[in-house]
Amino acid sequence: MPEFSPVFREQLQDLFRWRRDVRHFRRDPLPEPVLDDLLRTACLAPSVGLSEPWRFVRVDDPRRRAAVRADFARCNASALSDRAGADAQRYARLKLAGLDDAPHHVAVLSHPEPAQGRGLGRGTMPQTTTWSTVMAIHTFWLAATAAGIGVGWVSIIDPERVMAVLDMDPVLELVAYLCVGYPAQPASTPELERRGWERRAPERREWIRR
Amino acid sequence: MPEFSPVFREQLQDLFRWRRDVRHFRRDPLPEPVLDDLLRTACLAPSVGLSEPWRFVRVDDPRRRAAVRADFARCNASALSDRAGADAQRYARLKLAGLDDAPHHVAVLSHPEPAQGRGLGRGTMPQTTTWSTVMAIHTFWLAATAAGIGVGWVSIIDPERVMAVLDMDPVLELVAYLCVGYPAQPASTPELERRGWERRAPERREWIRR
Repeated sequence: MPEFSPVFREQLQDLFRWRRDVRHFRRDPLPEPVLDDLLRTACLAPSVGLSEPWRFVRVDDPRRRAAVRADFARCNASALSDRAGADAQRYARLKLAGLDDAPHHVAVLSHPEPAQGRGLGRGTMPQTTTWSTVMAIHTFWLAATAAGIGVGWVSIIDPERVMAVLDMDPVLELVAYLCVGYPAQPASTPELERRGWERRAPERREWIRR
Repeated sequence: MPEFSPVFREQLQDLFRWRRDVRHFRRDPLPEPVLDDLLRTACLAPSVGLSEPWRFVRVDDPRRRAAVRADFARCNASALSDRAGADAQRYARLKLAGLDDAPHHVAVLSHPEPAQGRGLGRGTMPQTTTWSTVMAIHTFWLAATAAGIGVGWVSIIDPERVMAVLDMDPVLELVAYLCVGYPAQPASTPELERRGWERRAPERREWIRR
């Protein structure tokens, strides 16, 4: 097992600190081998029973992208209509998706009952399957950040509608719709914090004792 | 934004590759500041709307630990009884928990409807809240691996029973029960793969195209 140096561990902290939910992208595409590398790295994520339930989908078809964009606009407008006053204004000012600019769209799906892994470890907690896919997405995100590539996770969409747009087997579930590309404005502070939406809570950094 | 060197990125690959689900632990405890650092690092994980829904619980009380151990034994026996023949034997040979040896037990809970974050981003996909906690666990796991510390995620437990054992607010949900300590047998190949339980699928490393 390799020993990780103090220098590496400090840079790893930087990586965690600088991994941002990117919403502002340059439009130039990434080289294909770079995207392939990110996918291979994502597949090193842990998965319950080694079930690898994730499915990574590149969405390149302009009509499908436009349909996802339209679904986002609908869901975003509805989220906005539920909020009043200053809150709504603040919400509207947050540019919540890089869908228009990001050169690459990646949908990440998960198989809820994969044959691979033969059910090990998910008998009493079947959600661990989906959670494995979440860790693959997080791995993709960290590897992208280390390569100077931005990832934005769009969750203001209707998962069933997007699954229909993508024409995927309905047994799969949509976990994330990712915008991927070079970031236009890197920052170490979350945009939500910079724009006064929310701040981190110090009590989360304390152990609860039992 | 820092630039991450090719050397760092190669070591990051090593980290992803060597992050294992550890089931064999030494019994000596970790220094408290090391555990505190891991928790602070975990809190750098992304969370939907910056909601930080995670709650990290140190389980030190020997009676609570014994009760969790008993619940694992019950669930493991039941999982075993559902499997026949060689499969069952292989399953039994897998030592599925380091619960007996690991010096530290960490339960990770999630608030399903946190006030923090004010609902942003979770209107159509409320599970993104739990998924944020999953990424905090994954961050904890990676930081631990970089520090030479092993983490094993125990999922063969009944979440409701364990929540009762921990006497936590039932509005919270149990996401993971982690064993933490120095690993006794580091390895780059998943134990499930080494023991012939399952192997990685190469087709996962190919894009699906839409």
